[in-house]
Amino acid sequence: MAKVRVGMVGYKFMGKAHSNAYRALPMFFPGSVQPEMKAICGRDPVGLETARAQFGWENAVTDWKELVRRDDIDLIDINAPSDAHKDIALAAAEAGKHIFCEKPLALTLEDSREMLAAAEKAGVKHMVGFNYRFAPAVQLAKKLISEGRLGKIYHFRGVFLQDWIIDPSFPLVWRLQKEIAGSGSHGDLGAHVIDMARFLVGEFDEVIGMNDTFVKQRPIASAMTGLSAKGGAGEELGDVTVDDATVFLARFENGAMGSIEATRFAAGHRCTNAFEINGSKGSIKFDFERMNELQVYFTDDAEDVQGFRRVLATDGAHAYMDAWWPAGHTIGYEHTFTHEVLELMTAIGEDRQPVPNFVDGVKCQEVLEAVDRSIAERRWVSISEL
Amino acid sequence: MAKVRVGMVGYKFMGKAHSNAYRALPMFFPGSVQPEMKAICGRDPVGLETARAQFGWENAVTDWKELVRRDDIDLIDINAPSDAHKDIALAAAEAGKHIFCEKPLALTLEDSREMLAAAEKAGVKHMVGFNYRFAPAVQLAKKLISEGRLGKIYHFRGVFLQDWIIDPSFPLVWRLQKEIAGSGSHGDLGAHVIDMARFLVGEFDEVIGMNDTFVKQRPIASAMTGLSAKGGAGEELGDVTVDDATVFLARFENGAMGSIEATRFAAGHRCTNAFEINGSKGSIKFDFERMNELQVYFTDDAEDVQGFRRVLATDGAHAYMDAWWPAGHTIGYEHTFTHEVLELMTAIGEDRQPVPNFVDGVKCQEVLEAVDRSIAERRWVSISEL
Amino acid sequence: MAKVRVGMVGYKFMGKAHSNAYRALPMFFPGSVQPEMKAICGRDPVGLETARAQFGWENAVTDWKELVRRDDIDLIDINAPSDAHKDIALAAAEAGKHIFCEKPLALTLEDSREMLAAAEKAGVKHMVGFNYRFAPAVQLAKKLISEGRLGKIYHFRGVFLQDWIIDPSFPLVWRLQKEIAGSGSHGDLGAHVIDMARFLVGEFDEVIGMNDTFVKQRPIASAMTGLSAKGGAGEELGDVTVDDATVFLARFENGAMGSIEATRFAAGHRCTNAFEINGSKGSIKFDFERMNELQVYFTDDAEDVQGFRRVLATDGAHAYMDAWWPAGHTIGYEHTFTHEVLELMTAIGEDRQPVPNFVDGVKCQEVLEAVDRSIAERRWVSISEL
Amino acid sequence: MAKVRVGMVGYKFMGKAHSNAYRALPMFFPGSVQPEMKAICGRDPVGLETARAQFGWENAVTDWKELVRRDDIDLIDINAPSDAHKDIALAAAEAGKHIFCEKPLALTLEDSREMLAAAEKAGVKHMVGFNYRFAPAVQLAKKLISEGRLGKIYHFRGVFLQDWIIDPSFPLVWRLQKEIAGSGSHGDLGAHVIDMARFLVGEFDEVIGMNDTFVKQRPIASAMTGLSAKGGAGEELGDVTVDDATVFLARFENGAMGSIEATRFAAGHRCTNAFEINGSKGSIKFDFERMNELQVYFTDDAEDVQGFRRVLATDGAHAYMDAWWPAGHTIGYEHTFTHEVLELMTAIGEDRQPVPNFVDGVKCQEVLEAVDRSIAERRWVSISEL
Repeated sequence: MAKVRVGMVGYKFMGKAHSNAYRALPMFFPGSVQPEMKAICGRDPVGLETARAQFGWENAVTDWKELVRRDDIDLIDINAPSDAHKDIALAAAEAGKHIFCEKPLALTLEDSREMLAAAEKAGVKHMVGFNYRFAPAVQLAKKLISEGRLGKIYHFRGVFLQDWIIDPSFPLVWRLQKEIAGSGSHGDLGAHVIDMARFLVGEFDEVIGMNDTFVKQRPIASAMTGLSAKGGAGEELGDVTVDDATVFLARFENGAMGSIEATRFAAGHRCTNAFEINGSKGSIKFDFERMNELQVYFTDDAEDVQGFRRVLATDGAHAYMDAWWPAGHTIGYEHTFTHEVLELMTAIGEDRQPVPNFVDGVKCQEVLEAVDRSIAERRWVSISEL
Repeated sequence: MAKVRVGMVGYKFMGKAHSNAYRALPMFFPGSVQPEMKAICGRDPVGLETARAQFGWENAVTDWKELVRRDDIDLIDINAPSDAHKDIALAAAEAGKHIFCEKPLALTLEDSREMLAAAEKAGVKHMVGFNYRFAPAVQLAKKLISEGRLGKIYHFRGVFLQDWIIDPSFPLVWRLQKEIAGSGSHGDLGAHVIDMARFLVGEFDEVIGMNDTFVKQRPIASAMTGLSAKGGAGEELGDVTVDDATVFLARFENGAMGSIEATRFAAGHRCTNAFEINGSKGSIKFDFERMNELQVYFTDDAEDVQGFRRVLATDGAHAYMDAWWPAGHTIGYEHTFTHEVLELMTAIGEDRQPVPNFVDGVKCQEVLEAVDRSIAERRWVSISEL
Repeated sequence: MAKVRVGMVGYKFMGKAHSNAYRALPMFFPGSVQPEMKAICGRDPVGLETARAQFGWENAVTDWKELVRRDDIDLIDINAPSDAHKDIALAAAEAGKHIFCEKPLALTLEDSREMLAAAEKAGVKHMVGFNYRFAPAVQLAKKLISEGRLGKIYHFRGVFLQDWIIDPSFPLVWRLQKEIAGSGSHGDLGAHVIDMARFLVGEFDEVIGMNDTFVKQRPIASAMTGLSAKGGAGEELGDVTVDDATVFLARFENGAMGSIEATRFAAGHRCTNAFEINGSKGSIKFDFERMNELQVYFTDDAEDVQGFRRVLATDGAHAYMDAWWPAGHTIGYEHTFTHEVLELMTAIGEDRQPVPNFVDGVKCQEVLEAVDRSIAERRWVSISEL
Repeated sequence: MAKVRVGMVGYKFMGKAHSNAYRALPMFFPGSVQPEMKAICGRDPVGLETARAQFGWENAVTDWKELVRRDDIDLIDINAPSDAHKDIALAAAEAGKHIFCEKPLALTLEDSREMLAAAEKAGVKHMVGFNYRFAPAVQLAKKLISEGRLGKIYHFRGVFLQDWIIDPSFPLVWRLQKEIAGSGSHGDLGAHVIDMARFLVGEFDEVIGMNDTFVKQRPIASAMTGLSAKGGAGEELGDVTVDDATVFLARFENGAMGSIEATRFAAGHRCTNAFEINGSKGSIKFDFERMNELQVYFTDDAEDVQGFRRVLATDGAHAYMDAWWPAGHTIGYEHTFTHEVLELMTAIGEDRQPVPNFVDGVKCQEVLEAVDRSIAERRWVSISEL
């Protein structure tokens, strides 16, 4: 089968993660349709060339429009800052390229819908980067629910807790600026929890939330990368225009009750993307800081030995793990992307839409925006309003 | 110093817990003002006499009015079902007795205010039974916050998760009937979390919530005790008139954001009364199922060894623990009551109000009722409205 | 049924623990034969009277010989320092009193055998204080093994880790003096692990060990109590004559392999009395610092959800727990003694030997002494040699 | 700088792990001397070619002697079954190639010494594959000890627990045959723990051990790979000629006491390579199943907040982690090899011996063999005897 020739826009945190996934695929999933790392794209020629060489791309271009036009590219991978997603995606769709876009899909729901419409009109494959679905322990969660082993779902409790900006002298990086990032912890972290909830519990019905920006001004940063921006900040202050934390309640269409919180002010939590789900037959708990584990409880266990089981999802019985190491040998964060790219390549090979795709991106955006509206208007907002 | 002569109304779960605390006080806190277990009161003479003998009360009376009138009683301990709290408390206050009342103080906010007013008018001491404050690990939490060691508080996340009625065939005990219990998981479990939040974070400003009753009808129970009512249920069904689960968002007066959930449908959780608090200098986590432990994180720990510490709050440095066993030897649930009674006796001895008292009971009730109103009216409700 | 009239020798740490257990029995196990707290005995009249009043004994005597002679005493409870056990026990047996003796039974194996012989000759009931057997989670461990649910046992791994003397300036209390304590961490802590191993796995076949005294001299203490002796030490140094740590390997009669370690130099461990057992069908783990929990693994769980279950042994299905609080409400260290005393009273009522009794005390002493001999002679020592 | 041209012998579990590490190096450590994946070697041409293509080696050879002779190879990587190590290493040394050899270095101590002598005589670089040293959390352990932050070391407690052969019908793979594997759990798993102890605590002084083979005969396997050999076994039984479990006590040269256990019969443990170290100023705990974490305790923490800290060793302050992802984003098992290969390449670039090298391999083998002798002769064996 022919390879999928990839052109990637962006080369920072996500660009590195995606590149690594493309590199891992032939090694660990040799039977899959394989990516060909054709071209990487970014604005700064020096940083770009460094990334190209390091990540292993054939060539580098500084203009994404050129990338999108190239005949030798089948798929455009978009992991530039969020404000650039839409234009690139629309152009890619128009050029008939498949699209793999990082979350959040766009700065607004309207934009994300436009992107979906364009992709559907063009008949291309589209995927959105909700990588956490692809942890084997999360796949196990999905399996247990799908097979009815947790029964009817009553509760979803999800948080994404970080602490990287808790120091008020941490600079004003792009993720803290609404015009570039679109949203703060809500869109960055909460989006992952929303997708997880949709993946495992189902569609949202209505929501109500609250948010806050605890540190309202920060030193203006010069050149910054990803999440790491220690030092380098000048004395001038600029406004933080996104939320530091957002919490909301949710009712799901199937009646389940949910609470979701995203914050960058939870001291001691580097990356606690965690959830718990309670059903009539059992419960599960997951914490990404221990991403190889799923806690599982069944109500029908013998009555003297009931308790949450710590399942180390590294056995052959667990999704993807046959491809890796013997049982008990854990994998890391990066391979959520490897599995994500596996799904993308497989779907292209099978001529079907990958999952999650732009539909999921739009639906996540609906929830994000419903929450924001509920905060602005201080009332419950139904997803169907949007 | 003279002893405090106690008359107690109720002899089931809480009656046993209170009795045990009175018995433990002279043994573990011999320097304290001591209770004298004068009389126990209940309606069923047979069950009452059994309890009297077992718990060690001098005598038993079946009419609480008689108990309240007795000259040889200084303190009325009320742990009968919630619908009986008010009348007994008013009568006790009028008779000039000190009052120790289990939570929730009353079925309604209005009733609880009436109780507070009566107690204040009578000039008696009054206490409300928020026993979880008295776990040494929770006292440590309070100390860390009071001393500023967590900095400014940003987040409170509290849950009280149980699973004892997850089986739909579990009978319709009094705790599931609004006219007796006043409220379901919200008033029973959520009240504890609200009090914990007030104790550690401060006063609530506004709230919005949601709730549900997942199992709407249950077999009508015959004689039932406390939380244990396995079997014994007939075939006839009756309506569950309280909430199975309530979740709500909160803004505190100091700006902190909170989420609080109480449910009896969290499979695998027997008694997860847990919270996490994040501040600008650190975080703490507590789970009552491991009540001797507090997880503590400080942002100013050396950068290569930052992490949540599992503090086993059984050292001499921890509240109350000098009175118990050597470090590392844990105590159980029951001694939250022992410490609570210690505070009650000490306050009476010092002629001051114990803490928490009816003011705390009323304020908790305000939050409970604000949440209920927010659910009924689907809007944010300010505590000041009530 | 007549009560069992108790005379107790010793009133420090263990005296307090035993007294508390006697007090708890009528409250939580009212159906049991009950103890009557007749007389407490100690050498210092002032401290003794304080203890008598605090613990609730009828009267106090300063001469244990007088206690043993009294007609109104049925049972002698011995929790004085270890060097006093033998003489008291022999006299008690001769006086026809039942005997409840703290561990270790005596300073030497020979002495312990003499005690057993005397008790058997006198036809009295005898019990030895291995209280950890009586944690409900440990009872669950026993049940699982007895019912064959762990299959054939391959491994026992037991430790008792403390850190209370890690500071070299901690004084030379009696537990660090061989002539009084008989042994150090080995006899004090290791004895508990040995008993646990015998209880759960079976009899020891042969052993080989090593030990050390890390801090060889310490300030001479004045009056000290139990494990708490902060400050109060003079400048003069005395020799520590017991082991700070002992580790040994063991082969059990049934072929299982074991390792056992006791130390007072494990920083961060206040009271880690922990074990793991691996069998052909499953495994269990216990740590006394979380004494209400047992970790349980079964090899025949469905292959995608295998993992250690954290069983909170507080349900009605767990030993003793019906007598306490609703599921999820934990009990503390002290109630290992309550259950122990329950067994003692029950056995007396049923006219049978309680378990564990002096036979268990002797067998534990055999292992302790075999280990000491193996250290002295640097070779494997068979239990049958002794 | 010129690249290091690698020829690798073996292409199963370790071959895959090494290949992956070579592939990861330019991506994550672009500043390092880089490997060039020249040739892979194995006996089965079909399996070999599959591996070559999958792992990304330039070409494949079926005769290791040919590989060793090639001019375009600088380094021979040996991860064939243990019985092949010696001949290949000797030939490689003679050909002037650097050598990277999996542990255990050889089937016997004598052989390993011969290998070391050959490498030293040839003046080549040599490394042995104790990959677990290279987990960032283990590097943190090393740092804390080296900087004196744990004080004087008193105790080392190490285990390597697996359960992959607990089913008696699991077939007789090469790892269970002495003539190929040299040793069972002792050499396979225990070797890692011994190396960890040497790395962190220091040299062994004397040891005494015990072992067992619980399942003495197993179905003869046909073609098997690595640790995964479910089914496929015939009915004929063959003898298991290695140990299923080995436990031993150790005294270190610095006086510390140790216990070390390796077993493949610990149900529920897929890969528990765990240790605890107690020192006069603190303690640490590590469990490979949570390889990104180190538990750390300091005796000089404030007395009300003492407790083991769960340090997630993924911050920039932790070894290697700057090269990976933002804080809180974990890495997996495979990157212990990436870091190991980084050390190998760096050492070659700096013209120094990598660590751990054949000296470490030999010293580990000394301990392994001392333990075996102690078992055979039922006595303490000093390392200096060997």
